[in-house]
Amino acid sequence: MKLSDGVEWGVHACVLLAVLPTDAALPAARLAEYHGVPSAYLAKHLQALARAGVLETVKGPRGGYRLSRPPAEITVLDVVEAIDGDEPAFRCTEIRRRGPSAVPAREYRLPCGIHRVFSRADEAWRAELTATSIADLTVGVVNEAPRVAMEKAARWLDEAVR
Amino acid sequence: MKLSDGVEWGVHACVLLAVLPTDAALPAARLAEYHGVPSAYLAKHLQALARAGVLETVKGPRGGYRLSRPPAEITVLDVVEAIDGDEPAFRCTEIRRRGPSAVPAREYRLPCGIHRVFSRADEAWRAELTATSIADLTVGVVNEAPRVAMEKAARWLDEAVR
Repeated sequence: MKLSDGVEWGVHACVLLAVLPTDAALPAARLAEYHGVPSAYLAKHLQALARAGVLETVKGPRGGYRLSRPPAEITVLDVVEAIDGDEPAFRCTEIRRRGPSAVPAREYRLPCGIHRVFSRADEAWRAELTATSIADLTVGVVNEAPRVAMEKAARWLDEAVR
Repeated sequence: MKLSDGVEWGVHACVLLAVLPTDAALPAARLAEYHGVPSAYLAKHLQALARAGVLETVKGPRGGYRLSRPPAEITVLDVVEAIDGDEPAFRCTEIRRRGPSAVPAREYRLPCGIHRVFSRADEAWRAELTATSIADLTVGVVNEAPRVAMEKAARWLDEAVR
C-alpha cells in the first residue's frame, strides 16, 4: 500500500503557499524550484489540487497558484484525496458470495466482517489526516525549521513574489 | 492508495483455515475453489503467508496449508503485512532538504512535520488491524453468515478434509 509521491509534494507546496503575502501567487515552475522536484510532474499535481478546490489559479504576469481558502480550512486529507483519490485502500469484492457456500446476495444482511475491519482502519487513518490542517503544519515548520533555512526561504520568497 | 487484492483473499483463506478440524490442512487448489479465485494467484499469496509464519505447510496426500498458530494469535495486520509488505503508505523523501532553503542535513533536528502526520495516520491504521484477530473474524462469520451458506460450507469442508 503506497501513496503517490505527489502527495508529499502537494502537502509541501500547500505549506509554502500558506506563507505567501495576501494576493500573491507562485507559478508551478517556482514551486518546483523551491522543492527541488520536476516541474512537469509537480504541475500535474497542482492541477489536481486546483480541480479539487484546494488551490486556485491567478492569471497575469504575477500569477500562479495560491490557496483557495485559509490554510486552517484545508486538511491534510483534502490534499491527499485531491492527488491520490478518495477510494478506500481495501476494495471488498464480495468473495464470500462465490464458491460452494454461496447463497443469493439478498441473504447476506450485513457487510462482510472482513470488509468492516478494513473500513474501521480506513476511518482511523482519515481521522488523523483530517485532524491536521495546512495551518497546523505551517506553524510546525516555522517553529522547527533551522533558523538559517528559514532565512534562506524568506529571501527566496521575497524575490519570487516581487 | 490501494491494498493488493491478495489481502482480501488471504484474510478469507485464514478464516476458513481457522475452522478446520485439528491437524487438517487444505491445498491451495481447494482454498481457491472455496473462494472462487484463481488458484495460481492465490497460491502465490499463500506462499507469502507461509514465509511470514502465518501459515504452515503439511506434506502428504492429505497435506496443504493450515494456520501456524491459534487464530486468536494471528492479527489482520499479520496477514496484510505478509501479503502487501510492511512499508508505511507515505515515504518521506526529505524534500525540505532540497532547493534554495536547504541547509546541511544535521541542522534538521526533528523528523519533518509532514512525515510525522502521516506516521500518526499509519499507526492508527495499523492499530485497528492489530486489534482484530482471525479468531474474531471467524466468530463474526459464524454468527452472521446466512444459515444455508453455513450448511453448504460445512458440507464442502467435510468432503474436502476427508
